[in-house]
Amino acid sequence: MLEQRFSIPQDEAFRRLNDSLSFDQRLWEYDVAQSEAHARMLARQGIIPAGDSDAILAALGRVRAELSEGSFPFAAGDEDIHMAVERRVTELAPEAGGRLHTARSRNDQVVTDVAMFVRDVARSSQSRAADLASTLVGVAEAHLDWPLPGYTHLQRAQPVYLSHHLLAYAWMLLRDARRFAQVAEGVSDLPLGAGALAGVNFDTDREFVAAELGFSGVVENSIDAVSNRDSLLDYLSAASTCATHLSRLGAEIVMWSSSEFGFAQVSDAWASSSSIMPQKKNPDAAELLRGKAPRVWGHLAALQGVIHGLPLTYNKDLQEDKEHLFDAVDTLALMLVAADGMVASLSFDRARLEAAAADEMLAATDVADLLVKRGMAFRSAHGVVARLVREAVSLGCTLSELRDDRVVELSEGRLDAAALRSVLADGAWLESKVSRGGTSLASVRVQLQHVKTALAGARE
Amino acid sequence: MLEQRFSIPQDEAFRRLNDSLSFDQRLWEYDVAQSEAHARMLARQGIIPAGDSDAILAALGRVRAELSEGSFPFAAGDEDIHMAVERRVTELAPEAGGRLHTARSRNDQVVTDVAMFVRDVARSSQSRAADLASTLVGVAEAHLDWPLPGYTHLQRAQPVYLSHHLLAYAWMLLRDARRFAQVAEGVSDLPLGAGALAGVNFDTDREFVAAELGFSGVVENSIDAVSNRDSLLDYLSAASTCATHLSRLGAEIVMWSSSEFGFAQVSDAWASSSSIMPQKKNPDAAELLRGKAPRVWGHLAALQGVIHGLPLTYNKDLQEDKEHLFDAVDTLALMLVAADGMVASLSFDRARLEAAAADEMLAATDVADLLVKRGMAFRSAHGVVARLVREAVSLGCTLSELRDDRVVELSEGRLDAAALRSVLADGAWLESKVSRGGTSLASVRVQLQHVKTALAGARE
Amino acid sequence: MLEQRFSIPQDEAFRRLNDSLSFDQRLWEYDVAQSEAHARMLARQGIIPAGDSDAILAALGRVRAELSEGSFPFAAGDEDIHMAVERRVTELAPEAGGRLHTARSRNDQVVTDVAMFVRDVARSSQSRAADLASTLVGVAEAHLDWPLPGYTHLQRAQPVYLSHHLLAYAWMLLRDARRFAQVAEGVSDLPLGAGALAGVNFDTDREFVAAELGFSGVVENSIDAVSNRDSLLDYLSAASTCATHLSRLGAEIVMWSSSEFGFAQVSDAWASSSSIMPQKKNPDAAELLRGKAPRVWGHLAALQGVIHGLPLTYNKDLQEDKEHLFDAVDTLALMLVAADGMVASLSFDRARLEAAAADEMLAATDVADLLVKRGMAFRSAHGVVARLVREAVSLGCTLSELRDDRVVELSEGRLDAAALRSVLADGAWLESKVSRGGTSLASVRVQLQHVKTALAGARE
Amino acid sequence: MLEQRFSIPQDEAFRRLNDSLSFDQRLWEYDVAQSEAHARMLARQGIIPAGDSDAILAALGRVRAELSEGSFPFAAGDEDIHMAVERRVTELAPEAGGRLHTARSRNDQVVTDVAMFVRDVARSSQSRAADLASTLVGVAEAHLDWPLPGYTHLQRAQPVYLSHHLLAYAWMLLRDARRFAQVAEGVSDLPLGAGALAGVNFDTDREFVAAELGFSGVVENSIDAVSNRDSLLDYLSAASTCATHLSRLGAEIVMWSSSEFGFAQVSDAWASSSSIMPQKKNPDAAELLRGKAPRVWGHLAALQGVIHGLPLTYNKDLQEDKEHLFDAVDTLALMLVAADGMVASLSFDRARLEAAAADEMLAATDVADLLVKRGMAFRSAHGVVARLVREAVSLGCTLSELRDDRVVELSEGRLDAAALRSVLADGAWLESKVSRGGTSLASVRVQLQHVKTALAGARE
Repeated sequence: MLEQRFSIPQDEAFRRLNDSLSFDQRLWEYDVAQSEAHARMLARQGIIPAGDSDAILAALGRVRAELSEGSFPFAAGDEDIHMAVERRVTELAPEAGGRLHTARSRNDQVVTDVAMFVRDVARSSQSRAADLASTLVGVAEAHLDWPLPGYTHLQRAQPVYLSHHLLAYAWMLLRDARRFAQVAEGVSDLPLGAGALAGVNFDTDREFVAAELGFSGVVENSIDAVSNRDSLLDYLSAASTCATHLSRLGAEIVMWSSSEFGFAQVSDAWASSSSIMPQKKNPDAAELLRGKAPRVWGHLAALQGVIHGLPLTYNKDLQEDKEHLFDAVDTLALMLVAADGMVASLSFDRARLEAAAADEMLAATDVADLLVKRGMAFRSAHGVVARLVREAVSLGCTLSELRDDRVVELSEGRLDAAALRSVLADGAWLESKVSRGGTSLASVRVQLQHVKTALAGARE
Repeated sequence: MLEQRFSIPQDEAFRRLNDSLSFDQRLWEYDVAQSEAHARMLARQGIIPAGDSDAILAALGRVRAELSEGSFPFAAGDEDIHMAVERRVTELAPEAGGRLHTARSRNDQVVTDVAMFVRDVARSSQSRAADLASTLVGVAEAHLDWPLPGYTHLQRAQPVYLSHHLLAYAWMLLRDARRFAQVAEGVSDLPLGAGALAGVNFDTDREFVAAELGFSGVVENSIDAVSNRDSLLDYLSAASTCATHLSRLGAEIVMWSSSEFGFAQVSDAWASSSSIMPQKKNPDAAELLRGKAPRVWGHLAALQGVIHGLPLTYNKDLQEDKEHLFDAVDTLALMLVAADGMVASLSFDRARLEAAAADEMLAATDVADLLVKRGMAFRSAHGVVARLVREAVSLGCTLSELRDDRVVELSEGRLDAAALRSVLADGAWLESKVSRGGTSLASVRVQLQHVKTALAGARE
Repeated sequence: MLEQRFSIPQDEAFRRLNDSLSFDQRLWEYDVAQSEAHARMLARQGIIPAGDSDAILAALGRVRAELSEGSFPFAAGDEDIHMAVERRVTELAPEAGGRLHTARSRNDQVVTDVAMFVRDVARSSQSRAADLASTLVGVAEAHLDWPLPGYTHLQRAQPVYLSHHLLAYAWMLLRDARRFAQVAEGVSDLPLGAGALAGVNFDTDREFVAAELGFSGVVENSIDAVSNRDSLLDYLSAASTCATHLSRLGAEIVMWSSSEFGFAQVSDAWASSSSIMPQKKNPDAAELLRGKAPRVWGHLAALQGVIHGLPLTYNKDLQEDKEHLFDAVDTLALMLVAADGMVASLSFDRARLEAAAADEMLAATDVADLLVKRGMAFRSAHGVVARLVREAVSLGCTLSELRDDRVVELSEGRLDAAALRSVLADGAWLESKVSRGGTSLASVRVQLQHVKTALAGARE
Repeated sequence: MLEQRFSIPQDEAFRRLNDSLSFDQRLWEYDVAQSEAHARMLARQGIIPAGDSDAILAALGRVRAELSEGSFPFAAGDEDIHMAVERRVTELAPEAGGRLHTARSRNDQVVTDVAMFVRDVARSSQSRAADLASTLVGVAEAHLDWPLPGYTHLQRAQPVYLSHHLLAYAWMLLRDARRFAQVAEGVSDLPLGAGALAGVNFDTDREFVAAELGFSGVVENSIDAVSNRDSLLDYLSAASTCATHLSRLGAEIVMWSSSEFGFAQVSDAWASSSSIMPQKKNPDAAELLRGKAPRVWGHLAALQGVIHGLPLTYNKDLQEDKEHLFDAVDTLALMLVAADGMVASLSFDRARLEAAAADEMLAATDVADLLVKRGMAFRSAHGVVARLVREAVSLGCTLSELRDDRVVELSEGRLDAAALRSVLADGAWLESKVSRGGTSLASVRVQLQHVKTALAGARE
C-alpha cells in the first residue's frame, strides 16, 4: 500500500466504491508478464542493478505460481491487482521490489494489461466465431438439398435450400471473425513507458518491452497512451454486432421449434422442461442467444457514456471500463460456445420443411418471370400475376386450381393454364435461381467452395 | 430437480448458459415468504391438508434459518433458488413438500419474488435519496451566505449563494425520492396465482395471499402477470435519472476540487493518491459518481432490448431481467451512500469563492436592470451594457475602471459613472434577486422552509 | 437579434451547428402563451406600464395569427423561436416590445415552453394509450370464447381464450396511460421567473403566471429551474416502456400472420405487397411497431448521456434535449394510432385457432392436477405425466392413444385410461382455470368488468 | 406504383407509418447509378433488348437531371425513391421502363443503394477526421513549447507542452480515420443480384455490375445479401467512437474557456452571448461537440435493437435503418467541420498556462526520481516525497519554502534543501521526460515527424 500524504483513513463506503481488486485480478497474468519485461528493460538500460532485476524476476515467478494455484496472499490494503503484485514482490524481495515501479505508473500499467487482455480475447472471439461458422457449414452440407420456405416480412416468399439459409449465418460469423481480427490488430502499440501521463525521467527502451510483450510498436504520445480506451470500444462494437447476429439465429431456432413451424428441434441436451407442464420442451439456449445480446450492446452504450466528455488524461471514471468489458467478453464467449453446441445437435424435419416449401404461392415470381421470358415487361407480368393471386385468394383455391379460361383472361392471353401449372410444379423454382449467390444447388455448391476458403482464412 | 421428459443429460455449456442460481439466490427471503403464504392459503382453501401445511411451514422455517446463516445445503441440480427451496422443503418434509407447488408455477413464483424485491429496493432507494437530500440541506444551511459564481455554459453568469446552489441538488434528490415512491406504489398487485400463464385448476384465494404479502390487489390477468416486467423498467428508469443527477453533482465536485477552481476539497477519507505522484489528492468518489451513471442506464437500455418484440407469455429471455436489475440496485445504493458521506465531509474555501463571485462582469445584468428601472426598454439596456463590456474587454480593464465620459457616451447619456460604480459595488447583486426562488437570502430562507417540508414528506 | 459584444460575425458552420429554429418553432404556441402571461404580470406588478403590456399583447395576438396561418415573417438572424417571437413583437410594437424580456431570460423561457409541451404530449399519449386499450377490449369482447394456445418459450403450454390474451395488452396500455398521467402531473411547477439562473431583480408575481398557464406551483429554486430536464426523461421513460409493449404486440401479429401460424390477418388497408412477389401480403405496420421501439429508447439513452456529468446550470448541450423528445413524441403517436387502426381491423381464423388449441399436450397440467385432486403430491403427479409424455413422444402418438395398460403402469396405478381420456376431451382445460384472473369464461367476464372500470379512470 | 393484389386502399395512418420517401430520396444518386449498371448488364446478357436498355439509360439520364435540379415530378403514390425512379423511367420510356425491374427486387436494390452510400460517407468521414487531425497538428506546432499542467483526476499532475496535449487528439482522430477506412473497405461486395432473397431466374452477370459500381466482389449468399445491415453498424460504431473523442475535446475547450482556467478562448466567430447577460461569451460549439455525441451512439444502440432477434430475410423493421444512419452521418459531419473551424481559431493565453504549469507540486515525481537516481528504491522515494508534501500542505507553504532541516529530516538524510530547490526550478520537469512519446521537446519533435507520416497515410 502507498504511503499516503493523508492522515485520515479511507471511509469504508469509499473503499467499497473504489475497489477494483474484485474484478481486475483477472488481469494478473498480464500484470506479471509486463512487470517481467519492465524489470528486464530497467536492468538492460542500467536504471536498476542487474541483481535487482534478477530478484524481481524470481519474486514475480513465485507470484505467478501463487496466483495460478490460488495461494496468493491478498492483503487488506490491496486496492487493485497491480498494487497487490507489487506489494507481494516487495515482500519477497524487499529492496529490489521497491525499484520495480521505477519509470512506470499505474496509469500506463493498467492500460498495458488491458491492451494485452483485449488482444487475447479478440483472438479467442475470432476463433470461436470461426468455429461456429465451421459448424454451420457442416450442418449446411448435411442438409444440402432440403427445401425451406424463404421469408420476407415472415411471409413465405420464395423457397430456398436449408443449406443456403444456414450459410447466410456462416457468412455473418465470418465477418465477425474478421472484425475481431481487426480489433486484435488495432492493439499494436505498447502504452507502457508513458508514465503517469508525460513520459518518464529515465532513458527507457520501450521498443524492447514492446517486442517482449508482442507489440509491433509503441504508443507515440504518452498522454494519448493513458487516456485512450479505443480498443475496448472496438471490442465491444465487434461483440455487439456478433451478439446481434446470434440473436437472429436464436430467434429463428425458437420459431422453428414451435409446433406451428415444426421445422427443427433442439437436442434434449439443449432443452429444459417446465415446473408444472411436463409436456414442455423449451429451447432455452436459443432464447438466451436472443436475450443476452442487449447485454453486450448495453455495455457498449455504457462505456461510450463513461468516456463521454472526460478531460484528458486518466480519470477515475475509467476504472468503470473493465467490468463492462469483462462481462461482455464472458457473455459473448458463452453465447458462441452454446450456439455451436446447440446448432451442431439440431435436428430438422424434412417432411415439414418440404410441405411448407411446396406452397404454390411461392412460385408467383417464377410465373411472372415466365411471362418476361415470353417478352412481357416485368412490371406488366407482375400485374398479371397479382390478378391471378387475387382471384385465387378470393376463391379460396390454389393457383393451379384456377379455371383455364380465367387464366387466359386475367393474363390478357399471354398465359395458358398448362404453362401456368407447369411452372407451379414443385422443384423448378429452387433450381431456376441460377444466378451467382442464388439458391440453386449448383450455386450453393460454388458458394460452399468460397465459404470454405474464407473459413481457412478466418483464423489468421 | 424435476423429473424430466428427456433422456439425455443437459450439455455443460447449456447448464452454464441457463444457470440463474448464482444470482437469483438473492431473492430467497421473498421466495420463502411467498411459499409460506401460499402453503397457508392452500390449507385454508382445503387444497392440501392442514397437516401438510404445518409440515411445509416448519420446513420453510428451517430453510430460512439455513439460508440466513449460510448453511443451506445447495445441491448440484439446483438450477435456481425456487427449485432449491422446494427441493430442500421436500427433503425435510417429503410428502407434504411435494404438495407445495400445487396451484403454482415457477412463472408466477418468479415474478412474485421480483415484485417484492422491487418494492423493497424502491423503498430503500427512496430513503437513501431522502437521506442525501437531507445532508445537502444541512450543508446548505452551514454555508447559507457564502457567495459563489453561478455559471451558464461554464462561464460566470451571476453570483449566487452556495446554499442556493446546493439546494438545487436537494430538489433533484427529492424528485428522485418521489419517483422511487411511485415505483413502489406501482407494485401493488400480486402476480401469484396466475399459474404458468392461464390461471390454475384450483379454487385459490389470491386476495388472502396478497394481504399476507402486503399487496393491495391481485393482477387481474394471468397472462399479463407472468409476461410483465414493467416494475423493473420503472425502477431502472427512476434509478437512471437519479444516477444522472449524481453524475452532475460528482462532476461539479471534481471541478471544484481542481487547483484552478479551488472552491472545495473532499475529505482525506474520500480521496486517494497516486502510485507515482505523491502530491496528488484525487476526488475518486466524485469521479465514480460520474463514471457509474452510464452503467445504470446501460442496464435500462439493455432490459428494454431484452423485452423488445417478445411474444407473450414467459420466454427464457426474461431470465436476463435480474442481473440488470441487481447490478443497478447495488450500483445506485453505493452511489447514494458514497455521495452522502462525501458531501457531508466537503470543505469549502470561502476566500476563493468570494473572490470568484466578486468578478464585476457578473453584475452586467444588474446594470441593465438599473437602466430598465430608469425607464429604458430591456433590449436597449442590454445593448448599452454590451457596448460597455466590449469597451472594457478591448481595453483590458474592469467595468468600474471605464472612463467617465465613455460611460456617458456609450450609454447615450442614460448612465453616469457614479451610478455604474454603485451598482458594481459588491453584494447588491445577490440580494437584489428578491423574486421567489431567487438567490437573495430572504428567498433562500423561504426556500429552506419549503425544502424541509418536502423532506418530511419524502419518506412516505 | 441581440446586440452582441462581439465584432466578428458567426462562422457559417457554427451557425448551422447552433441552429435550433428548425425544430424549436414547434414550441411557438407555448412561447406566445407564456409571453402573454408574463406581459400581463409585468403590468400588474407595475414593472412595465399598462400601455406597454397592451401593445405587447396586441402584437402577440398578431404573432399567433401569423404563426398559425404560416405567414410569420422569419428573419435571417432568428436563431430560435424565442428570439423570433420577441423580434417580431418588437417590430410590431417597437418601444413596448423591447420591454417584454424584462425580468425573464431565455433560460427560464425555454424550460417553460418545454414544460408546457411535455404536459400536453403526456396527456395526449395518455389518451392515445387509453384509446388503444379500449380498442383491445372491444376486440377481446368480440372474440370472447375463441380458444388459442397459450405459449411459454413459444411452445404451446396451456390453452387460453383469445379475449384473455388480448386483454393482457389492454392492461399494459392502461399502465402506460397511468405512467403518462404521472408524467403530466410531475410538470406541476412553473420554471418561469427563475431568470438566467439566480432569480430576477424585480418584484415579480410568479404565482400569477403559474395560475395563468395552468401550473399549480412554482419551481422553488431558480438554479434547479433552468438546469432541470427531468420531465423530458420522465416522458421518454414512459414512452420507452409503452413502445416496448407495442413491439410485443407487433411481433405477435407478425407471427400470427405467418402461414405457419395462420391465426390472424391484418386488413388489406394495413398491408403492403412486394415489388416482385405479387402473392405477398406483408403486415408492415406490425413490423414497424417492433422496429420503431428501439428508436424511442435510443432517445432516452441519448438524453441521459447528454445530461450526464453536466455542471449546473444551463449548458448548450441541453439544446439537444428537444430533438430527442420531439422525435420520440411523434414516433410514439404514430405507433399508437397505427396500432389502434390495425388491431381494430384484424381478422382472426377461428378454425385454425381451435385446431391449435385442441392439441392434447396442452392438457398435461390438467392431468397432473387430476392426480393431485386424487391425493397425489403435485411433484409426483408431475413426474407421472412426464413419463406419459415421454412414452407418447417416443411412440409418435397422442396421450389419448397410449395403451391402457401403459397408462396404469406409468402412473403406478393412480390413473386409468378412461380418466385420462376424459381429462383430455376438449374444452375442460380452459374452463377449469377458475382462479381469479384465470382464463375460464367466468373469470374473463369478471376481468372485463374490471378493465372497463380501469378504462373509465384512464383518461383522468 | 405496384398493381396490388389488394382491393382496399391503404389506411392513411398506415401510409404515414410506412412512408420512407421523405428520407430515402437522399439515396437517389445511387439508385440511378445502380439502375444504369443493371440495365446495361441486362442488355449485355440478352435478358432485355439493347434498344430497351438504351431507352432506359436515356430516361435515367433525364431522371438524374430532374432530381439534381429539383424538378423531379414526385407522384402521390411514390412510397419510396426506388419506386419513384422506376415509375418515372416508365413514364418516360413506357415499354422499356417496365423491363428495368427484371432480375432485381427492391430488397437487393435498397441494400445496394445503402452500401454505396455507406462507402461514400465512410470515405468522407475519414477525410474530415484527417482534416481535423491535420488542423490539430498545425495548432500543436504553433504552440510547440507552451507549457500546460497535465492532469489526472482533473488534479494537476505533471506539466506537459500544449503541443503534446493537442497531438493526443490528433492521434485519436487518426485512429478514427483508420476506422472509417476499414468501414469503407468492408463494403467490398455487391448485394445486387440477390433478388428478393433467393437469387434470380436469369443468367445475370453480377461481376460486371460490381465492377461498374466500384465493388471488388459480389455477396456470395443471396439471403445474407438482403438481410445484412453490418455495414451500417460498422459506420455507426466508428462514428460513435469518433464522436466520443470530439466530446472530450469539446469538454476541455469548455473548461479551458472558463474564467477559472482561462487557458483558451474560442474566436468570436465561434461564440454566442446571452439574452440577458451581455458580458457572456459562450463556447457553444465546444458544448455541442459534447452534447451531440450521445446522439450518435443513441442511433447505434437503437439500430442494434432494431436488428435484434429478427428472422431472416428482409423485415420491414429494417426500414428503420436509414434514419438512424442519416442523422448520425449528418451529426458527425457537422461536429467534425465545426471542431476543425473552432480549433483552428482558438487562442491560448501563454501567461496563464505558464503560471499554472509552474506549480511546484507538479515536480513531486521529479523529486522522487532524483532520489531514485541517488540509489533509493522508488517506493521509498515516493514515501519521502509524500512526507514533504504533507508537511508543505499542513504549513500552507510551497515545497521550496520548507525549512532546510525538515527537508533533511523527512528525507532521512537523502535529500538536502539545495538539491530539492534545484529540481523545483522551473522547466527541467518537462525537458526531463526524455522517453519516447514523452513531453520533452526532443520527443515531441520526433512525434511530430511520426504524426505527419501517419497523416499522409490517413487519406488512403
